[in-house]
Amino acid sequence: MTRITLKQASEWAEQALARAGANPEMARATAQGLVMAEAQGLASHGLSRLPQYTTHLRNGRAFGGAVPTVTKRKGAALVVDAGCGLAFGACRLAVHEGMAVAREFGVCVVGVINSHHCGVVVDHLRPAAKAGFVALGLANSPAAMPAAGGLHPIFGTNPIAAVFPRRDANPLMIDLSLSEVARGKLMVAAKEGRSIPLGWALDAQGQPTTDPKAGMGGSMLPVGAASSSKGAMLALVVELLVTAVIGAQFGFEASSFFVNEGNQPRIGQAFVLIDPEALAGSASYLSRIEVLMSEMLQDPDVRLPGARRLSLERQAQEQGVEIPDALAEQIRRLANA
Amino acid sequence: MTRITLKQASEWAEQALARAGANPEMARATAQGLVMAEAQGLASHGLSRLPQYTTHLRNGRAFGGAVPTVTKRKGAALVVDAGCGLAFGACRLAVHEGMAVAREFGVCVVGVINSHHCGVVVDHLRPAAKAGFVALGLANSPAAMPAAGGLHPIFGTNPIAAVFPRRDANPLMIDLSLSEVARGKLMVAAKEGRSIPLGWALDAQGQPTTDPKAGMGGSMLPVGAASSSKGAMLALVVELLVTAVIGAQFGFEASSFFVNEGNQPRIGQAFVLIDPEALAGSASYLSRIEVLMSEMLQDPDVRLPGARRLSLERQAQEQGVEIPDALAEQIRRLANA
Repeated sequence: MTRITLKQASEWAEQALARAGANPEMARATAQGLVMAEAQGLASHGLSRLPQYTTHLRNGRAFGGAVPTVTKRKGAALVVDAGCGLAFGACRLAVHEGMAVAREFGVCVVGVINSHHCGVVVDHLRPAAKAGFVALGLANSPAAMPAAGGLHPIFGTNPIAAVFPRRDANPLMIDLSLSEVARGKLMVAAKEGRSIPLGWALDAQGQPTTDPKAGMGGSMLPVGAASSSKGAMLALVVELLVTAVIGAQFGFEASSFFVNEGNQPRIGQAFVLIDPEALAGSASYLSRIEVLMSEMLQDPDVRLPGARRLSLERQAQEQGVEIPDALAEQIRRLANA
Repeated sequence: MTRITLKQASEWAEQALARAGANPEMARATAQGLVMAEAQGLASHGLSRLPQYTTHLRNGRAFGGAVPTVTKRKGAALVVDAGCGLAFGACRLAVHEGMAVAREFGVCVVGVINSHHCGVVVDHLRPAAKAGFVALGLANSPAAMPAAGGLHPIFGTNPIAAVFPRRDANPLMIDLSLSEVARGKLMVAAKEGRSIPLGWALDAQGQPTTDPKAGMGGSMLPVGAASSSKGAMLALVVELLVTAVIGAQFGFEASSFFVNEGNQPRIGQAFVLIDPEALAGSASYLSRIEVLMSEMLQDPDVRLPGARRLSLERQAQEQGVEIPDALAEQIRRLANA
């Protein structure tokens, strides 16, 4: 493993993205997003994505010249067009504009269209939490999961994220994909020659499988699919909110991120920002959330969501992060550093 | 079983509620909600609730004189106070007012505070779907499920509902509680002397149990809890949105609905209405949702959510519903009919 400071990682990532064609704002926002994920221990959404993103910039699946823009506004509803560039700057703009609107109207819904992989959804919500907003983030991704009763992948793993600010404490940060497990778990099982439990995946014919390789060629299953279709129903709700409702493409219309060639995914993200001042009132909200936190923490094994990743992030800010030697070498090469 | 027309059922329910102290509007809205649930085959949220509601009206857990009122509005955010009455009229008002606001601002969030059991959440969203809105409905209920890693019940079963209107077709109607199974499944297993699978419930000490009676004295588990904490995290998100954010009480502060005595639950509901016209545009939304429906229906066993209950409802409108003789007799007695 190679230890690297966050500053160094950001510089290399930014250089690599710029060399691949990203404009300066896109390169900076994306580099910061990837390094923030890495710092939180979320390696699958961290620097390991850099080769994928730079390849997409080079082969046209992401347009490096894109400048995200608010293309529509009616009252408290906004659309941000990511212009088929990388998603990070567009999500930042969406939440930034959304905060101003939610301050005025109590709530804002903002959709990001013509977008790409947005990394750790909840990270986009952090500025909103810092400013006192409760916020939700939703996204789709290339088709990975079937509909309830379905045989072939249609929906992305469709994460749901939320932040709830607290007084004198870090915000609650919730971020979960709606698949039972991440695709990475199948890859690891395949590499180690282990089988997977039923309920993780279907094979290419839509049949339940315990073979991780068959699962990788088929579908991931929604959360809790072994016993109910609730996960699939939630995936449908998220899929529609970030596509038909705002104007982005369905997961099944986007080429996989796990291959180099393919289309511009044009997938979507949506954010809902709520100002508690407009509803319960901020003072009431901030005192009442603490009542729930106290009740939850009466049970000794309860951990508040986001605490662990923020603690890892603080540690990484002091000590840097460790990444595989091969990845470090690859990033240096991409950055021409 | 006793067969009864929907008209007769509504009249008896309305009379029973009025005799127990509900004002005419509350009696009518509640009776219509219960009969609509019964007609859709959702007996657990149908006429079987009438004895509970009338008892609550009589012992003060629900205030029959309450008139739901919009008590706060800022821009596109509203608060409706249910006045500690039954919830149905308050939810109707909330969605009705929310539609006007969402038409103007593209989106509306409306919270219902000082509320009670709201029945089938998605039914409250039907008028919104009919008017072309996409809408979400959330609610809490008296504590039933633990936090992730927790030992004692804190959250309600916290349903998530959604409607998506379609052109020339019924809207998609999604409605799921975040518990792995409904409490009723434990009751049935207990009655039949069967054990329950791990992952359904914890006992009173917070330990996993296969004993349905022990589960009924402990906690229901969130969806998918056997393998992940995602269901518990979603329950936390819903709980906060319908309580601290809008000003309603937590599930753990409300007395159970399954006992007669107790406090006024003062739980909450929240609705988010979105006008697709303000985002993708209504024409685009309506044509794009059909693309997803076609893709889903390529798999022969996929059923669109809401189809089955609407078909049962149409049947019930012609043929009435069958309810247990004892319940029919009880309702007649409550209605003094």
